[in-house]
Amino acid sequence: MPATLEQLIDDLDAGAAGQEMYRFIERAYPICRSITGDGVRETLAMAAEIAPLEVHEVATGTPVLDWSVPKEWNVREAWIKDPRGDKVLDFRDHNLHLLSYSVPVHRRMPLSELREHLFTLPDQPDLIPYRTSYYRESWGFCLRHRQLTELADGEYEVLIDATLEDGSLTYGECFLPGTSDLEVLLSCHICHPSLCNDNLSALAVSLQLARRLSKIPRRLSYRFVYIPGTIGALTWLARNPDAADRVTHGLVMANLGDPGKFHYKRSRRGDAVIDRAVVQVLASSGDEYEVEDFVPFGYDERQYCSPGFNLPVGSLTRTPWGRYPEYHTSADDLDLVTPEALVGSLATYLRVFAVLEADRRFLNLNPKGEPQLGRRGLYRSIGGGDDGREKELALLWVLNQSDGTHSLLDIAERSGMSFDAIRTACGALVEAELLRPLDNEETT
Amino acid sequence: MPATLEQLIDDLDAGAAGQEMYRFIERAYPICRSITGDGVRETLAMAAEIAPLEVHEVATGTPVLDWSVPKEWNVREAWIKDPRGDKVLDFRDHNLHLLSYSVPVHRRMPLSELREHLFTLPDQPDLIPYRTSYYRESWGFCLRHRQLTELADGEYEVLIDATLEDGSLTYGECFLPGTSDLEVLLSCHICHPSLCNDNLSALAVSLQLARRLSKIPRRLSYRFVYIPGTIGALTWLARNPDAADRVTHGLVMANLGDPGKFHYKRSRRGDAVIDRAVVQVLASSGDEYEVEDFVPFGYDERQYCSPGFNLPVGSLTRTPWGRYPEYHTSADDLDLVTPEALVGSLATYLRVFAVLEADRRFLNLNPKGEPQLGRRGLYRSIGGGDDGREKELALLWVLNQSDGTHSLLDIAERSGMSFDAIRTACGALVEAELLRPLDNEETT
Amino acid sequence: MPATLEQLIDDLDAGAAGQEMYRFIERAYPICRSITGDGVRETLAMAAEIAPLEVHEVATGTPVLDWSVPKEWNVREAWIKDPRGDKVLDFRDHNLHLLSYSVPVHRRMPLSELREHLFTLPDQPDLIPYRTSYYRESWGFCLRHRQLTELADGEYEVLIDATLEDGSLTYGECFLPGTSDLEVLLSCHICHPSLCNDNLSALAVSLQLARRLSKIPRRLSYRFVYIPGTIGALTWLARNPDAADRVTHGLVMANLGDPGKFHYKRSRRGDAVIDRAVVQVLASSGDEYEVEDFVPFGYDERQYCSPGFNLPVGSLTRTPWGRYPEYHTSADDLDLVTPEALVGSLATYLRVFAVLEADRRFLNLNPKGEPQLGRRGLYRSIGGGDDGREKELALLWVLNQSDGTHSLLDIAERSGMSFDAIRTACGALVEAELLRPLDNEETT
Repeated sequence: MPATLEQLIDDLDAGAAGQEMYRFIERAYPICRSITGDGVRETLAMAAEIAPLEVHEVATGTPVLDWSVPKEWNVREAWIKDPRGDKVLDFRDHNLHLLSYSVPVHRRMPLSELREHLFTLPDQPDLIPYRTSYYRESWGFCLRHRQLTELADGEYEVLIDATLEDGSLTYGECFLPGTSDLEVLLSCHICHPSLCNDNLSALAVSLQLARRLSKIPRRLSYRFVYIPGTIGALTWLARNPDAADRVTHGLVMANLGDPGKFHYKRSRRGDAVIDRAVVQVLASSGDEYEVEDFVPFGYDERQYCSPGFNLPVGSLTRTPWGRYPEYHTSADDLDLVTPEALVGSLATYLRVFAVLEADRRFLNLNPKGEPQLGRRGLYRSIGGGDDGREKELALLWVLNQSDGTHSLLDIAERSGMSFDAIRTACGALVEAELLRPLDNEETT
Repeated sequence: MPATLEQLIDDLDAGAAGQEMYRFIERAYPICRSITGDGVRETLAMAAEIAPLEVHEVATGTPVLDWSVPKEWNVREAWIKDPRGDKVLDFRDHNLHLLSYSVPVHRRMPLSELREHLFTLPDQPDLIPYRTSYYRESWGFCLRHRQLTELADGEYEVLIDATLEDGSLTYGECFLPGTSDLEVLLSCHICHPSLCNDNLSALAVSLQLARRLSKIPRRLSYRFVYIPGTIGALTWLARNPDAADRVTHGLVMANLGDPGKFHYKRSRRGDAVIDRAVVQVLASSGDEYEVEDFVPFGYDERQYCSPGFNLPVGSLTRTPWGRYPEYHTSADDLDLVTPEALVGSLATYLRVFAVLEADRRFLNLNPKGEPQLGRRGLYRSIGGGDDGREKELALLWVLNQSDGTHSLLDIAERSGMSFDAIRTACGALVEAELLRPLDNEETT
Repeated sequence: MPATLEQLIDDLDAGAAGQEMYRFIERAYPICRSITGDGVRETLAMAAEIAPLEVHEVATGTPVLDWSVPKEWNVREAWIKDPRGDKVLDFRDHNLHLLSYSVPVHRRMPLSELREHLFTLPDQPDLIPYRTSYYRESWGFCLRHRQLTELADGEYEVLIDATLEDGSLTYGECFLPGTSDLEVLLSCHICHPSLCNDNLSALAVSLQLARRLSKIPRRLSYRFVYIPGTIGALTWLARNPDAADRVTHGLVMANLGDPGKFHYKRSRRGDAVIDRAVVQVLASSGDEYEVEDFVPFGYDERQYCSPGFNLPVGSLTRTPWGRYPEYHTSADDLDLVTPEALVGSLATYLRVFAVLEADRRFLNLNPKGEPQLGRRGLYRSIGGGDDGREKELALLWVLNQSDGTHSLLDIAERSGMSFDAIRTACGALVEAELLRPLDNEETT
């Protein structure tokens, strides 16, 4: 069992971890999820096999901030029969065929009337779009545009055998306490039906993170929330004001299985530690990446970064929402996500946690002049050569900047050295009793 | 009659407004203005036909800050006769021919002595330069360099029939009160003789602004001052310390009739609201423009931005002083200015005022999470499509940033959206009772 | 005798000054210096012929911060004899041949064992490296790599007739009081044996600076310290906490005789007045230069900028340590340094002092509007021309910015004008009683 996060990262079996996450996505893919309903429950039950989840049910009608918990939606069957009585569209074939939160209906109508309830993508005629109508009662079907153009005139029969009635909203939570009260919030939306990258990929990665973190000592506490988008985040925030207050760092997890490069969207604050930690990790990866400023649009960072909370929560994804052609279509399937991309995402999140765990302010106990590193075995004995200069430079940066105002992240940024080099130097100096962590860090 | 500034801008009849300003310049062009004298009075009388002006007279010798009001200068006639008795130069032909503030003289002298009193532009031999000697008693004539080279030797007769004696300095002021005490200062120098762009153009634009603003409701108060350069600004500042204290935004108006692109010179502060409002308007115009830092040289921003006042006053011009070849020469005439350029300047100033009028801080009344815009008719009902996303984005930006510290201008700058889009979103949110203006704005 | 620093700079006889510095280096070059010992004493005695030095001796074992003063090292002779009894290496030929601080030894040993004590530069086979072992008892020789490859097998005789025993560390100090308590610290390491650029060059320049400054009136106090690297700086800091507290500006002087361009390394603070003053001087020189951020590596700025002191001390060199091929080798000899480079360094340091001497905050005594410069003879009498505009612009910048918060350096930076132009304008305005220096400057 690894004793530290660094060891855990070093010991990561990429092949096995990637396969495990991919297989989870395969199992969860056919389930019809929405912002409420049994699909969410079934998915969380699968998730609980991997990481220690607590599942919460919040009754329909419960006020949550400016909103209230909606009715619960469940579907038995849904189809359209053509004038000849043949099923031309069946929810069983693909759960994207049904507009999410469609009300029950069983009627006959001419194609002209039916058309008002049919959604397609004329520019991507072979893909089924994903559409929802959570907060306005409606019904509809989504289909390939090519199929729509082939529908014959005549009278169609439409059946949506669904219930939309009082019930509850379901979400999951996994809390891993650390030695300090400082909390890391990891938020993952679980409301999308058969869409793999958005967002089964993040669910799979998040569960692996939780399981692995649960097995090592932690300075920080970690809280993973598995929630329906928007209403779930609002519900969690409304029910957990104290936990929200303790959020020191947070990330919204999404789109972590596609082959695209990483994109980091900064928190509303823009200069939070999480913003800098993620950039540090991405910059040291050697891979291309993008960093973008906060905009109040996207996933649940919209809620966490609303002005009444203003939490230090960014979002680390691969290709962001709306920027890959498969987004919110039936092409966001098992072919889009790969084990390699998933495990790369897992490792990147772990490296971010490693920065957060280690990032503290330290105090140079010998601040006047340099301490004599040589007699402590930390310095070359023959002056004038070049060996070990990088290690010495890291030691000197940590000593020079550890006046109580600079964190290791500050030092890595100012020095241009890697966070790893700075953390290692810091460890050696603490060992040599030349440095000590500031006491008040735990409660800041 | 327009009810708002936005309507006034939308309803602007560019053709008529341009012609009206151009005709004013045509009428005022022949008048010999200087820093004092009847030319100024005549010009202000014409101005008062357009906008409600109060005219002030300040007696010669009145101390104004480090200066004192100079003697009043008036000219009856001025000419030079050549050895044959022919008038080779006559003030009646062009008032630039006379060095402004020339003392009376009637003498005969050889060309060699006369030359010391003749000013030309060797590099622009066909143009008459504009020269002044306000604060050192002197006399002189300005002429085309080509004419100077053709003057024959011999004895010349010089007449300047002028008076330079106790009188007063004349300036105009138009004050339009708003519902708040916050004042916008618009300053325009009126001391130049027959020069169109510098500065009859700004006078014409300024009078139209005053007339149009006088007819609509105003949050801010507007104060237009029509003053001789330097000594007029000093005089106004010396006599109006309380009004100076109330200046919240200000612009020095000049060179607004040439076809050049807009140039904005920032206030000494550099980050005043006026500095940002003008940039916002210019950036959203789609036209090229330049923004320059403050330098303590130029027009009367030198006085308003002196350290004892340090008013938030910038200068919005088309081509700045000294950067067009016609500057301070007889070529700054009726051909240089155009109705189109004048009306473009008018509209640009009005747009700046529209930003200043609307720019306030608002408070999100539902700051925890996003409010449910859908049930208020402010959001798309079917999720997943792209319609109306820009409008929603503006709503979300205003909600997200309205924590009491950010103004609409701040939000426009951070979001990169146009001020118009942000203002419109703000209006819808106030209407929906999701936002209210901060009470203390009126007195800030 | 020059009455001001500006005159001193104007009167500098470059030829004579360059020769004098070069001859000093020639005399000092053969002496074997180290961090202690008679070579340092001999060098300081030569230095005292040029500038008024006080020489301090600090006993071996004296605690200095985290360190203690080491034993004193002196060498009588040192050589290696080959199997045939021929001296193949002799300290008398070049004092770099001996590892500095080698302990005494007199032994016979085979080449294989001797090799562990031989240091060469395989990439620069014709140069002798410079190596030290101050804080770990050891012995060794440095030689040309080419010679090493030619040594025959067999038994060699090694003699190092040196003493390493209780004694003292020697350093010099020259203090030139000014009219204020504000101190400028100039630090120069003197511990290197026969190496010309590093650091006899800086010693030569520093002594000339001290001698010349001693002859003119000074506002600031100047303290020149001549110390062995690291341990000398620590010793000076440990013994002079009050003087350290008074350091307002400081420079570590090194590598001032090579033909390379100037490099300035900023203080740890990064925005200290010294950082800005040096950049001002280098920028106005018209020559290429480089400015680099602080790193806690290099010369004694490492000590002065340790967090417990954090002094505003930068380092102004020509080519920095380690970046010229002759660095720390026998090629850093009398051919590398030139009188021209030395005198250029001297002049540059003097110009930096001129900025520091003049840089104060002034108060505009007529802050409301511009004062009437014309009646004080400071302004053109005929308006409209271009003559003297630069001088007027400098006057206006000084007046505009002298609100008590901006120094002359601030004004030079904001205006983009040269510090000389700003200082000259300031002088004229003080003369005209439009400006006065702020009283509290002397003690800030």
